[in-house]
Amino acid sequence: MQLSIAIDMDETIADPIKKAREWYYRDYGKTFTPEELHGKTFTEAVPPEHKDKIKEYLNTPGFFRDLDVFPDAKEVLKELNQKYKLYIVSAAMEFPDSLRDKYDWLQEHFPFLTWKQFCLCGDKSIVQTDIMIDDLIRNFTFFKGKAYLYHGHHNVHIEGYERILNWEDAAKKLL
Amino acid sequence: MQLSIAIDMDETIADPIKKAREWYYRDYGKTFTPEELHGKTFTEAVPPEHKDKIKEYLNTPGFFRDLDVFPDAKEVLKELNQKYKLYIVSAAMEFPDSLRDKYDWLQEHFPFLTWKQFCLCGDKSIVQTDIMIDDLIRNFTFFKGKAYLYHGHHNVHIEGYERILNWEDAAKKLL
Repeated sequence: MQLSIAIDMDETIADPIKKAREWYYRDYGKTFTPEELHGKTFTEAVPPEHKDKIKEYLNTPGFFRDLDVFPDAKEVLKELNQKYKLYIVSAAMEFPDSLRDKYDWLQEHFPFLTWKQFCLCGDKSIVQTDIMIDDLIRNFTFFKGKAYLYHGHHNVHIEGYERILNWEDAAKKLL
Repeated sequence: MQLSIAIDMDETIADPIKKAREWYYRDYGKTFTPEELHGKTFTEAVPPEHKDKIKEYLNTPGFFRDLDVFPDAKEVLKELNQKYKLYIVSAAMEFPDSLRDKYDWLQEHFPFLTWKQFCLCGDKSIVQTDIMIDDLIRNFTFFKGKAYLYHGHHNVHIEGYERILNWEDAAKKLL
């Protein structure tokens, strides 16, 4: 029997932070060095008075529609989809305008997946698969399977989880 | 610890069939008697050449936005939400235009729920809660908790599941 695997979207296969940083530069003329983002989410890195602005970006219709795909994600997910029962699970509900954008983005970049494999939820606590790949450990709180923390600047200080550094690394570990 | 409960939308708390029947009457001038729908989904009840038309209805933006709420669902879900960790889980992904409509419909009629409690998926096989209420037994295939079949004209012949006849009955069984 095939094992099931849940794969997150934002900061795992999709890059919303690159776009948020570009918009932030457009609006405030400031970029962030890797040091300034080390151990922080982008929202944590901006001044307190700009946090609502980041939320506004994420709430903009279309924001999630044209995000960059993480390197090698297409190729590796295509292979994972042969070996596992693969699901894309995204905590998208906080940004309802993202729902259709995320659906369309997945259809465009991962045409080998079907709508049956997409799950857009609020809270991932009711999702149970054999394996989960996610960049946020809060999504592992109730998870009973094998969790892989997808490496990102915001989670560098977190310990106690096996990491996936990038999709090439995922291929080594899971294929 | 609170038990978790997953509650379906269509034909459990929302009435898409009433609307589909109205649209069908508008387009073809035909209504269906309870006998004609007994043991059948609405799509199964219409002539083969009209099945795509029903799919077209469900794919129409706005179709799911103003559906009737099932009797007593608001009141009973409000109480269930006090007693359980409640999630609304809908296999909505087949109709991507329904995603935002369903979110807005839930916000309108169930304002005591938050977006964290909404889960719009393709296939419910990765959803695990202690209890699930659904009108389609295919959603119970991989489910390990206690399943309640929400009674409907299309599932009258199905045996082997404890039924919930309506939301008053749910209150008796679960509150």
